Amino acid sequence: MITKTLVDHCLSTSYEHIPDEVKLHGKRSLLNWLGVAIGASQHPSIDMLLEVTKDLQTAEQVSVFGREEKVDLLMAALINGTSSHIFDYDDTHLDTIHHPSGPVAPVVLALGEHLGLSGEEILHAFILGCEAELRIANAVYPSHYQLGWHITSSTGVFGAAIAAGVLLKLDSEKLVWALGIAGTQSFGLREVFGTMTKPFHPGKAAQNGLLAALLAKKGFTSSEKILEAKRGFANVLAPEHDLEKVNVNWGEDWELLKNSFKPYACGIVLHPSIDACVYLHKRVSPDHLESIELKVNPYVLELTGKETPQTGLEGKFSVYFTAAIAFLDGNASEKQYTDEKVKDEKIIEIQKKIRIVVDESLKEDEVEVTALLKDGSNITHKVLHAKGSIDNPMQEEELLTKFSSLVEEHMGKSISDNMAHFLLNLEQYSNINELIVLNQQKKLISK
Amino acid sequence: MITKTLVDHCLSTSYEHIPDEVKLHGKRSLLNWLGVAIGASQHPSIDMLLEVTKDLQTAEQVSVFGREEKVDLLMAALINGTSSHIFDYDDTHLDTIHHPSGPVAPVVLALGEHLGLSGEEILHAFILGCEAELRIANAVYPSHYQLGWHITSSTGVFGAAIAAGVLLKLDSEKLVWALGIAGTQSFGLREVFGTMTKPFHPGKAAQNGLLAALLAKKGFTSSEKILEAKRGFANVLAPEHDLEKVNVNWGEDWELLKNSFKPYACGIVLHPSIDACVYLHKRVSPDHLESIELKVNPYVLELTGKETPQTGLEGKFSVYFTAAIAFLDGNASEKQYTDEKVKDEKIIEIQKKIRIVVDESLKEDEVEVTALLKDGSNITHKVLHAKGSIDNPMQEEELLTKFSSLVEEHMGKSISDNMAHFLLNLEQYSNINELIVLNQQKKLISK
Repeated sequence: MITKTLVDHCLSTSYEHIPDEVKLHGKRSLLNWLGVAIGASQHPSIDMLLEVTKDLQTAEQVSVFGREEKVDLLMAALINGTSSHIFDYDDTHLDTIHHPSGPVAPVVLALGEHLGLSGEEILHAFILGCEAELRIANAVYPSHYQLGWHITSSTGVFGAAIAAGVLLKLDSEKLVWALGIAGTQSFGLREVFGTMTKPFHPGKAAQNGLLAALLAKKGFTSSEKILEAKRGFANVLAPEHDLEKVNVNWGEDWELLKNSFKPYACGIVLHPSIDACVYLHKRVSPDHLESIELKVNPYVLELTGKETPQTGLEGKFSVYFTAAIAFLDGNASEKQYTDEKVKDEKIIEIQKKIRIVVDESLKEDEVEVTALLKDGSNITHKVLHAKGSIDNPMQEEELLTKFSSLVEEHMGKSISDNMAHFLLNLEQYSNINELIVLNQQKKLISK
Repeated sequence: MITKTLVDHCLSTSYEHIPDEVKLHGKRSLLNWLGVAIGASQHPSIDMLLEVTKDLQTAEQVSVFGREEKVDLLMAALINGTSSHIFDYDDTHLDTIHHPSGPVAPVVLALGEHLGLSGEEILHAFILGCEAELRIANAVYPSHYQLGWHITSSTGVFGAAIAAGVLLKLDSEKLVWALGIAGTQSFGLREVFGTMTKPFHPGKAAQNGLLAALLAKKGFTSSEKILEAKRGFANVLAPEHDLEKVNVNWGEDWELLKNSFKPYACGIVLHPSIDACVYLHKRVSPDHLESIELKVNPYVLELTGKETPQTGLEGKFSVYFTAAIAFLDGNASEKQYTDEKVKDEKIIEIQKKIRIVVDESLKEDEVEVTALLKDGSNITHKVLHAKGSIDNPMQEEELLTKFSSLVEEHMGKSISDNMAHFLLNLEQYSNINELIVLNQQKKLISK
């Protein structure tokens, strides 16, 4: 009854039932999501996806954020979801290394635009979708992730289906089927990390989940227990799991509150190392540096062990490159992860001075750094909670700065400010059309 | 190098390199595929998929077989692939319980129509796609299937990508990426068997594989070793595997030659039991029957153990119902699997007289039946090779009869005959347009 109970929980949780702090965190999550989606909207992989929609003569139904093109509902879910993960700069549920908005936000915005829904309806479905996928992620983490599944897409497809199903007003039977159709499409191998196919994952999860809900609405039948069945999601995709976590304390505990926002444009596992190297940046001149030793949680080398990245994208999977730019530039924003920088001799020279030591006693948001200087002295520093983690979160002002730094360059300051204002006051709008109109004004900017 | 070697094998195998018997079997596979696709083309689940394409205002690019509607390339792959698996009457590679045409045929026909390709080009890509997916299936069977994966979709997505990539003339680097994009989308849980979502699997695999090739053609990057990487397809989706099987004796052994065609409209595991009960049908009057005992391979109960199916579709997953209709009607065609028949008291009475005994010594195409009669006598019979198995294959004449029995009702005899003639002489046509024109004549029939 795990699947059915989850569905009944979602359908019995009205907008009014959701605590204000969850609504606020939902709006901030959407703000962060739209920022990273627009920030990456001119990336070559988005051009390629749009070229495919031209090949398919896709209908111009709804918006691609940051672009002038319109595409159909399913392609919008795919493209906007992909865009939001390109910079590896999106939100993270640290307990499961999950990026919850990626598969859900593009679905509620596409359906919202298509059906002319209100801000409240969108926020409601978004929160339920995120909550469902994160609880499923809790149930299968860590064995599922360790086996090799990209948990954002493999569980995100459920969140997308819940969000779409709520907006399409599916009844309990059909929403259960939607989860069945979604769950059998669960996918995403960590092997593709470091290529364009990683950001494709949340987009495709959004698309698969939306398709599931569209089909279920027509009466397309599926499993009634996709999560818990013998050959269902958990048993097949997670060597160890605890499905009790899916429904425990529903309505009291909110996983979405544990969603954090990244100050840096790479995987969250690198953030403590970046904090540590930014600390050194302020204290050590590159000319005086002999070497840097970083003691890290085991995931750092497992996920970002590339020693000689060849592209800016690969740089995000290299703790060596990342530590070097953080030390040299005092930052690790999208502007640091370029194809030029990974070939910059000055940076490569620093990379060679960085040594990584795995220390199983360190948590995922911790790191210990020791810089040895040429004069024989050394500086040590321990990061206890990386910036952006639950215990050291980004403040709203910092989120707004991040948003404008991503959006202004593509949309101009006025549109960027208005978009941020819209999302932070989302529930006050009776139709999300105002956001769409702002996106369309891009056309005026680019003239 | 497994993935790269497979791609290089495919790209270096010209049409001329393929033995004539493989080409013939390829054409027969396409004939069988089109028959089952058109046969199920009026099914409610196809109506539902087409309703979704209306919601999406999908472009009218290519044909849905057996229907008047046209949809875009990706939706055609999805819908035609789904249609072909609805009756559970499609082809089967018995070594892996794989239905190879399902994910591949809809891709080559959609691209063939869209690009105006020749019969030879289509047959070439179809054979390579089937060969690739079956070899991958060999490498992960049985652990992959036993874990709960529907091997037709989970490995079929590779076949679809290879076939599409060959037709789109991808070079080696891009075809490797296409496999990366396809492989990370591998999906399909056996939990949904018995619902509309099972036939959705080969269709979605076709769609995912085609999308992968379309994206790779634009330069969308992905893994270069999706099959063999630590967190790639085999390690994540198959507890045990032998990837040597992917490339062994390429060009000498042809897995497609082991593709068999079903005489009955249900899963292949039931076919020996049906043969056995058809044998009894000819010898025992229902009035004289006391009980039937079927000794079967373990997969029979695992896959088709439903004791009281409630719908015709569920009947296909019930060895009890299937044995009963085979005994009463002497057949197990699509006409036996109806919602009326599963509620027919006369059939249910026979169902109750059927006992299934699992015997691990029996192969998948074997069964031993014992009928006990009311007069105390009994009849026993052993099926050594079920009809449709490699050792007892359907002949071309039987395939043609199956095709016309599926197609005539929807297209009329003349179109049905012309379609069959076209497919059996596929390589002689410089453009597959003739098949498309035949399909469009459906419109005239339905007036």
